[in-house]
Amino acid sequence: MLYHVRMEVHPPTHLPPAEFDRLKAEEKAQAQALQESGRWVHLWRIAGQYANISVFDVADHDELHAILSSLPLFPFMSVAVTPLARHPSAI
Amino acid sequence: MLYHVRMEVHPPTHLPPAEFDRLKAEEKAQAQALQESGRWVHLWRIAGQYANISVFDVADHDELHAILSSLPLFPFMSVAVTPLARHPSAI
Amino acid sequence: MLYHVRMEVHPPTHLPPAEFDRLKAEEKAQAQALQESGRWVHLWRIAGQYANISVFDVADHDELHAILSSLPLFPFMSVAVTPLARHPSAI
Amino acid sequence: MLYHVRMEVHPPTHLPPAEFDRLKAEEKAQAQALQESGRWVHLWRIAGQYANISVFDVADHDELHAILSSLPLFPFMSVAVTPLARHPSAI
Amino acid sequence: MLYHVRMEVHPPTHLPPAEFDRLKAEEKAQAQALQESGRWVHLWRIAGQYANISVFDVADHDELHAILSSLPLFPFMSVAVTPLARHPSAI
Amino acid sequence: MLYHVRMEVHPPTHLPPAEFDRLKAEEKAQAQALQESGRWVHLWRIAGQYANISVFDVADHDELHAILSSLPLFPFMSVAVTPLARHPSAI
Amino acid sequence: MLYHVRMEVHPPTHLPPAEFDRLKAEEKAQAQALQESGRWVHLWRIAGQYANISVFDVADHDELHAILSSLPLFPFMSVAVTPLARHPSAI
Amino acid sequence: MLYHVRMEVHPPTHLPPAEFDRLKAEEKAQAQALQESGRWVHLWRIAGQYANISVFDVADHDELHAILSSLPLFPFMSVAVTPLARHPSAI
Amino acid sequence: MLYHVRMEVHPPTHLPPAEFDRLKAEEKAQAQALQESGRWVHLWRIAGQYANISVFDVADHDELHAILSSLPLFPFMSVAVTPLARHPSAI
Amino acid sequence: MLYHVRMEVHPPTHLPPAEFDRLKAEEKAQAQALQESGRWVHLWRIAGQYANISVFDVADHDELHAILSSLPLFPFMSVAVTPLARHPSAI
Repeated sequence: MLYHVRMEVHPPTHLPPAEFDRLKAEEKAQAQALQESGRWVHLWRIAGQYANISVFDVADHDELHAILSSLPLFPFMSVAVTPLARHPSAI
Repeated sequence: MLYHVRMEVHPPTHLPPAEFDRLKAEEKAQAQALQESGRWVHLWRIAGQYANISVFDVADHDELHAILSSLPLFPFMSVAVTPLARHPSAI
Repeated sequence: MLYHVRMEVHPPTHLPPAEFDRLKAEEKAQAQALQESGRWVHLWRIAGQYANISVFDVADHDELHAILSSLPLFPFMSVAVTPLARHPSAI
Repeated sequence: MLYHVRMEVHPPTHLPPAEFDRLKAEEKAQAQALQESGRWVHLWRIAGQYANISVFDVADHDELHAILSSLPLFPFMSVAVTPLARHPSAI
Repeated sequence: MLYHVRMEVHPPTHLPPAEFDRLKAEEKAQAQALQESGRWVHLWRIAGQYANISVFDVADHDELHAILSSLPLFPFMSVAVTPLARHPSAI
Repeated sequence: MLYHVRMEVHPPTHLPPAEFDRLKAEEKAQAQALQESGRWVHLWRIAGQYANISVFDVADHDELHAILSSLPLFPFMSVAVTPLARHPSAI
Repeated sequence: MLYHVRMEVHPPTHLPPAEFDRLKAEEKAQAQALQESGRWVHLWRIAGQYANISVFDVADHDELHAILSSLPLFPFMSVAVTPLARHPSAI
Repeated sequence: MLYHVRMEVHPPTHLPPAEFDRLKAEEKAQAQALQESGRWVHLWRIAGQYANISVFDVADHDELHAILSSLPLFPFMSVAVTPLARHPSAI
Repeated sequence: MLYHVRMEVHPPTHLPPAEFDRLKAEEKAQAQALQESGRWVHLWRIAGQYANISVFDVADHDELHAILSSLPLFPFMSVAVTPLARHPSAI
Repeated sequence: MLYHVRMEVHPPTHLPPAEFDRLKAEEKAQAQALQESGRWVHLWRIAGQYANISVFDVADHDELHAILSSLPLFPFMSVAVTPLARHPSAI
């Protein structure tokens, strides 16, 4: 099932920059592993913002929440989830 | 270039239903032709709403506006456009 | 899978009252059949508003959208869908 | 009487993580005791967010406020309460 | 139990003025009967708006909804309900 | 003259808890003195929130502002003031 | 006492233009009489909008509401009232 | 002086299409004359919307309002005006 | 030319109180000098808020920005500017 | 291609002022170099705010994002991007 997810990152001011850089590197590795597994099917940068628009293809709400909440930057994100159904005009 | 577009349809109350049905049929044909041409690359229904989330791949802003503003249902839509850039973690 | 759905009805002013009453009766019958089938698991009135908060238990986004969009009052509703995951503190 | 409650947690940055973990463990114990007592009748995670949607069944507004305001994470929550009435189409 | 209710009236343009005047007269009579019965305990006009702020004292959510939804102007109102608890500093 | 006032408290994270407790005790004393004087005529807790809805009866805007801005918790509050006029249906 | 009032006019589409022109002429006459009487002390057009920002000097909330609600265009206005107190830095 | 103006057109449903087409033609002629006169210095279409972003260079607020409020489509527009000052980093 | 300006002060928590008091004293002196010069023509306190509504009469946008951005409390303010034109019904 | 960009700066409170001043000087140099290269075609100050409205002329979304995200003040900005198409009435 497909979910549209918008994530916006609010970098913390109370973390040492090196610590935040480490979290970003872990986030990138995790994002790429999820893309390779076929669960994170689209990942786009919103131009001009520290934010992305993504599409996930997972089994259910629980799997989606498990994935999102275990992202290293999750504590610094605001996240909006929209369930996507098939469109009658889609080919 | 990729554009994220959210379209929400507000069916008019002042049109005869048959006229609106005709516009919807034309909209569907146009949406499918644009998908086949490779310019309307994703089209998803937002679950529970008369709305869709789409991704377009077109040459520039002018082509995007020409496509959107010539959709038969355009006069009854609210539309939000977000330019999508490449994400550094995308594979 | 569980979905939280908020529906608010905006009664149309361009329909004859008898026609709207007929739609409401059909809506009620459909809501009760869906409750009996186990797919519409909770249905509460929001105090003071022509609106409800509901929980659906359906197979996927497509089934949810099919159910909601075929409700007789759907054309007169604004609808918000929230996917519900299991809470780690739920017993 | 039923109340729909939406709680969103904003983890504090000024608390030592161990202290916040202790509060979360207390919150979980309290949430489970309230569920067992029949007063916290539903508790769902909003997919993708550090937030829940809950339904409480308590005697009155004062009992609801006493319960919510004594939750260990209450100082870090934004809370929205909606009174739920019986829906005429509910079975 | 006390409920804070904000009501804003949006006069319909599709009703003959005499019909709307009749509804307003009925609304006034009903509001005064409810005040006399002790259930509509405060009724104030918001200065500069066709809106009021009220406090109701009723048995439960169902009674509140029954009262509000049977007001003659209810179809033309937007209504917001806030449950009021006892304040620890109130004398 | 009557004023409807909504106050929401945002407890500061930079004050020692004992200092904030002292301010809360002073706030309570001041609120009770103002109620006894007849100027703070209603004080209700909004269920589930660190917020209240109040009604003041004072001579004019200046007196209202003097009272509100001298509350010990005023620096930590967001405040909304609504002037209340007599309602033609009030008894 | 001073009140800051923002009025925005939403011209009705269901009135004959001549009727709306007549109401505008009456509104203008009434606005000028109120200015001459010293109660409508400032009246400015918001550049680019069919809206004004005004300051009234009246005895109390009831007089303000009586004035505003008897303006010929009141049924087509959205109105926001802000009570103005003396500023400690005003000379 | 420069003013940033955002205009969004809400086509009326109560006008015959030919009448609205006539207004659009007049609007276009007036927009072009104002551009040629140097007062309407930029005019861009917002991609995907019946809206524009413009910059005007006029003597003062009164001239701006006179220009905007005499546009043939002004009755069907929502307009937002932002005064632009010189930026210290502009070359 | 007249500008309507709404300023809301958000006192900083990272400044020593004595430093903030010094800035407030400077702000007051500057506000009074600007009033005496005829450029800050109105200054009102919004009842119940650490905010003011003001009217400035200055030569142009640049002068307005220079004045506002040099106020000692400017770094702690949110500011909204509305250009005011002459109203056709003003006397 | 043209992009309308609104940038609002939220100065950090956790940076030493000298460090922030250094970033502002770098920002100014970078803004001027981008203007000279023809990619940052307009840069205006919003009167009364620490914010600007800009127009960029760049090859595509990726170039826009690369420019914006490398601005020294980018971590302290909220940014909104609007793609601009040619307007049919532009001369």
